[in-house]
Amino acid sequence: MNVTVTDTLSGVQTSLELAGTIAFALSGVVEAARKKLDAVGVCAVACVAAFGGGTLRDVLLDRRPLFWIEQSWYLWCVLALCVIAMQLMRAKHFRPTEKTMQWPDALGLGLFAASGTQIALDMQMPALIAVLMGVITATFGGVLRDIVCNEIPTAFHDHHPYAVCAFFGGWVVVGLNWLALDPNAVLMIGAATVTALRLAALYFEWRLPAWKIED
Amino acid sequence: MNVTVTDTLSGVQTSLELAGTIAFALSGVVEAARKKLDAVGVCAVACVAAFGGGTLRDVLLDRRPLFWIEQSWYLWCVLALCVIAMQLMRAKHFRPTEKTMQWPDALGLGLFAASGTQIALDMQMPALIAVLMGVITATFGGVLRDIVCNEIPTAFHDHHPYAVCAFFGGWVVVGLNWLALDPNAVLMIGAATVTALRLAALYFEWRLPAWKIED
Amino acid sequence: MNVTVTDTLSGVQTSLELAGTIAFALSGVVEAARKKLDAVGVCAVACVAAFGGGTLRDVLLDRRPLFWIEQSWYLWCVLALCVIAMQLMRAKHFRPTEKTMQWPDALGLGLFAASGTQIALDMQMPALIAVLMGVITATFGGVLRDIVCNEIPTAFHDHHPYAVCAFFGGWVVVGLNWLALDPNAVLMIGAATVTALRLAALYFEWRLPAWKIED
Repeated sequence: MNVTVTDTLSGVQTSLELAGTIAFALSGVVEAARKKLDAVGVCAVACVAAFGGGTLRDVLLDRRPLFWIEQSWYLWCVLALCVIAMQLMRAKHFRPTEKTMQWPDALGLGLFAASGTQIALDMQMPALIAVLMGVITATFGGVLRDIVCNEIPTAFHDHHPYAVCAFFGGWVVVGLNWLALDPNAVLMIGAATVTALRLAALYFEWRLPAWKIED
Repeated sequence: MNVTVTDTLSGVQTSLELAGTIAFALSGVVEAARKKLDAVGVCAVACVAAFGGGTLRDVLLDRRPLFWIEQSWYLWCVLALCVIAMQLMRAKHFRPTEKTMQWPDALGLGLFAASGTQIALDMQMPALIAVLMGVITATFGGVLRDIVCNEIPTAFHDHHPYAVCAFFGGWVVVGLNWLALDPNAVLMIGAATVTALRLAALYFEWRLPAWKIED
Repeated sequence: MNVTVTDTLSGVQTSLELAGTIAFALSGVVEAARKKLDAVGVCAVACVAAFGGGTLRDVLLDRRPLFWIEQSWYLWCVLALCVIAMQLMRAKHFRPTEKTMQWPDALGLGLFAASGTQIALDMQMPALIAVLMGVITATFGGVLRDIVCNEIPTAFHDHHPYAVCAFFGGWVVVGLNWLALDPNAVLMIGAATVTALRLAALYFEWRLPAWKIED
C-alpha cells in the first residue's frame, strides 16, 4: 500500500472532501427515499453517492488505501448522516423534490471536481486525464447512484450543464497550477468556479446545445 | 502481485469460499432464468453473483491476484454448475421461485460475510471497514447480479434483514478476534451466526423498521 | 506504477486496440442516440463502451497505468469521434438502426478478444483466465454500455453468438501461442477468427442452443 500521495493532501483538501462527501451522501438519501428503498438501501445508496466517484478515481489511478478506508471516520459520518436524515424525514413528513437535490449536488460537484483534478495532477497525469479524473470524481457518485436505483444517469440525459461545469472547472485548476498558485487557493477557486457555474446554469436555465434532430 | 495475504487463508476458509461461491452462483442462475437470459447470460450472471462481492472487496483492498484468478478451478466449478443447472432446468421443467433463491442466498451470505471480515482484519483494517468488507463480500454479488439484470437490488428495497445479518455477523467475527479465538472457529461461528439470523429473519418474517411515512 | 507489461505491446497490438476502441465508441454513440441522451451522455457512453472492457481487464489483472491513461490520445480520439458523429447525425438526419451497430461491434469484438487474451497470457495467467480476460475485454464495454443505458445487456439475452465467438477466438489465440507463432500473426489470426465467426453468426442467423422450455 502506498500512502505517500495521500499524505500530500492539505488540510483544506481534506475539509473539501468531507464537505463534498456529506453533500453527495445527502443526494443519495434523497434519491433512495424517492425510490422507497429500505434503511439498508438508504445507507448503501448514500455511500455509493458519497464515495463512488472518489473510489472510481482511486481505483483507476491505483491509489490505495482508498480515502474512506484510510480515514474511516468518513464512513461513520455518512452512516450517522443517514440515521439523522431518516429520523428527520419521518418526523417532518419531508417530501424530497427535484429542487432539494440541486443544492447539495452543486456543492459536491465543485468540491470533488477541483480536488479530483488536483490529485491527478499531483500524480503527474496529463492535463486531459487530470480534468477527466475531476469529472469522474464529481459525477460518478451520482452516476453510480442512479445506476443502482435503476435509472439512466441524470447527468447523461437531462440536457443541463453538470459534468460540463466540472470539466470547465478542471481546466481552471490545470491553468492555476501552471501559474504555480498556492494549492489551497487553486482548490478554492476551482471549486467555487464549478459550483458558481452549476448554480448559474440552474438559475438561467442554460441547456446543452441540442446535437440531433428531435422527433 | 502480492500473494502473501492469500497464503494465510486456511483450509477451512477456502472450503467456505467454495461453498459460498457455489451457493451464490446458483442464485445467479435462478435470477438469469427468471429474466429469460440466454446461456451466455446465465454463465455471466452466475459468475457476477458468485465472484462479484469478493472481487469488489479485493479491488477495494488492492488484493491481487483475485481469488478466482489464482485458483482458477473456482471458475471451472461455476461454469460446470451452470451447464448442469441448465440441463436440470430443461429436463425437469423446473420453475424458479422466490423461495428457491432464499436458501442458497442465506448460506452464501453467512460464509462470505465471515470470510470477508476476517480477510480485512488480517490486513489490519479498522473494525468498521472490516465489517463493511464482510457485508460487501456477502451482498454485492447479489447487488451486481440485480444491477446486471436491470433490477433495483433486492437487498436495498425489500425491507427484509439481509445485509443487516451480515453486518451483525461481521461484528461477531470482530469480537471473536479480540478474544483471540482459533481462526477456523471464528469463521465457523461467524458464518453460522449470519446464516441463522437470515433464516430466522425469513421464518419469523422480521422486517426492517420502517423509517418514513408510507403513502 | 508498473509500465513494463504495457511496453511489450507491439505496434500491431496498439493499432488493433485503437481500431477496436473507435469501433466500440461508435457503438456507444449509436446506443446513446437511441436513448436520446445529451452530448455529455453520448461522450460518456462512448467512453464506457470503448474503454470499459479493457479497463475492467486491467483492474482485474492490476495493470497500471490503464492503456487510455498512459496513451491519452486514445481519449482525444474518442472525444473527437463523438463530436464528428454528433455533427454527422444532425446533418444527415441519420437514424441509428440495429444493423448499424452490428458491423463496428463485430470488428471490436475480434480485436479486443485477441488482444485481451494475449495480454493475460503475457502475464502468465492460466489458459481459462486468459480466454475469459479476452471475453471481458471484448464484451464488457458493451455490457457496461447497456447497464449505463438501463438495459439488460444485449450480449446476455439475445440468443445470438457474441461472447461465444470471443470465447472460441480466445482458445485459438491460446493454441497459436502454444505453437509459438509470431505474436503479431497470433493477434491477427485470433482477431480475424472472432470477427469472421461473429459475421457468420449474423449472416447465417445462428442461435445459441435453447436451454430451457420457453413458455
